[in-house]
Amino acid sequence: MADFETTVRVRYAETDQMGVVYHANYLIWMEVARTDFCSHIGVDYRVMEQEDGCVIAVVDAHVRYVYPARFGDEIIIAVHTIETSVKLLKFEYEMRRASDDRKIATGDTTHLYLSKDGFRPIRLPEKYRAAFRVSA
Amino acid sequence: MADFETTVRVRYAETDQMGVVYHANYLIWMEVARTDFCSHIGVDYRVMEQEDGCVIAVVDAHVRYVYPARFGDEIIIAVHTIETSVKLLKFEYEMRRASDDRKIATGDTTHLYLSKDGFRPIRLPEKYRAAFRVSA
Amino acid sequence: MADFETTVRVRYAETDQMGVVYHANYLIWMEVARTDFCSHIGVDYRVMEQEDGCVIAVVDAHVRYVYPARFGDEIIIAVHTIETSVKLLKFEYEMRRASDDRKIATGDTTHLYLSKDGFRPIRLPEKYRAAFRVSA
Amino acid sequence: MADFETTVRVRYAETDQMGVVYHANYLIWMEVARTDFCSHIGVDYRVMEQEDGCVIAVVDAHVRYVYPARFGDEIIIAVHTIETSVKLLKFEYEMRRASDDRKIATGDTTHLYLSKDGFRPIRLPEKYRAAFRVSA
Repeated sequence: MADFETTVRVRYAETDQMGVVYHANYLIWMEVARTDFCSHIGVDYRVMEQEDGCVIAVVDAHVRYVYPARFGDEIIIAVHTIETSVKLLKFEYEMRRASDDRKIATGDTTHLYLSKDGFRPIRLPEKYRAAFRVSA
Repeated sequence: MADFETTVRVRYAETDQMGVVYHANYLIWMEVARTDFCSHIGVDYRVMEQEDGCVIAVVDAHVRYVYPARFGDEIIIAVHTIETSVKLLKFEYEMRRASDDRKIATGDTTHLYLSKDGFRPIRLPEKYRAAFRVSA
Repeated sequence: MADFETTVRVRYAETDQMGVVYHANYLIWMEVARTDFCSHIGVDYRVMEQEDGCVIAVVDAHVRYVYPARFGDEIIIAVHTIETSVKLLKFEYEMRRASDDRKIATGDTTHLYLSKDGFRPIRLPEKYRAAFRVSA
Repeated sequence: MADFETTVRVRYAETDQMGVVYHANYLIWMEVARTDFCSHIGVDYRVMEQEDGCVIAVVDAHVRYVYPARFGDEIIIAVHTIETSVKLLKFEYEMRRASDDRKIATGDTTHLYLSKDGFRPIRLPEKYRAAFRVSA
């Protein structure tokens, strides 16, 4: 799928004493992008989790830090799926500083669909397959 | 009740670009102290929430920041209850730096007992009243 | 001063196992509102801290939690100053859920101006006094 | 080098509405383990950063999530270096639940030594080479 983009502005809380964004926060931004991407393709993740009992759990996460982000920076996060099936979902991310398009970081995450109660692997509910471009 | 004490060591993640601990993290430390205090008086908060369906929700929190805590500091958090009833619970906290007993911050929190599903105010389950020194 | 408003959307990372926003995160939102308020009145806090060596440190923070915020909620944070002088700054906040204007929380914070190196109390640099409506 | 181990207890703040630890927090635990490992081999990271102006920056981080950690769990984090040179440092981590030795997650991080001001790559200061078992 083509890239979807969303934006975050760096919060003071996200910095550390090195004067730059603490590295764990990039995973949070990647999740913000993932959630916004889901909305964009018509999937309300709140409904999926609460009503359909289907959780998109992270099983693998990888971040490559290229250039430090700083307080006040506007960061554009591009996200796209690189694999979608009834069993799993993989996303790739690229984070750039809006002011000068400087690359900040790249990352990828892998997800399994789990039942909300019990965390057993399940197949993506049929109603979401078209949105994620998954064939049965 | 007499003070109960617990200790945390400042994590790098808890600092901000000012070079000191970001102020929201003190609320997390106060919660660590509260949880340890509960264990100390024989209350397993996991059981209370999951099995007894009783949540201790924060309705008010106040922190006074006296002296900055820094990465690597060992912080002693003293906590005691200042009010306990079947309806609510109030705690007071004092945070000191272990190395020189310097006062870092003080705080207090007020809590209501809520039902886990629905968040309606409930009375503290009887089995916990003795531990919290609450009479019916 | 009249209220200034800014908006955050609740991140999954901000929830806890109670299914609602973890209480310490409200302090982070209040800070986002404070930063945006400063921009709005023409004060770039990055410049103030890095170039003018003046830090706006939190010395007191208070939050009253009225109704739980949940993942995906859009939260409007209204902020205004209730006291400004060459020595200190006090803000008041009100957080409402955008969808139905439900009040989520209120809060206030008190700040001292400190020198960036040494954390000694200083007077607000003159260039910022008009923006904060402080007379010498 | 042989594994060094440290322990964290899961904080309520670290959970999310899925009822388990939010995935970004594992990076924070890995950092806690790294800091404790450094202390263990005689390197005080505070001194290294503040006095020697040498920052150990994360340039790559990878986590594989095996089994969810929950509030109150005691997690043992084993850490060891898999590559050390005057230019970079690689760590590998394994997280297990103390109660039953269940594997929770594994991870690895890669770090460059950077000058504190300017974030230019530098060589590991000589005084630390023996501790990290790096030859010139």
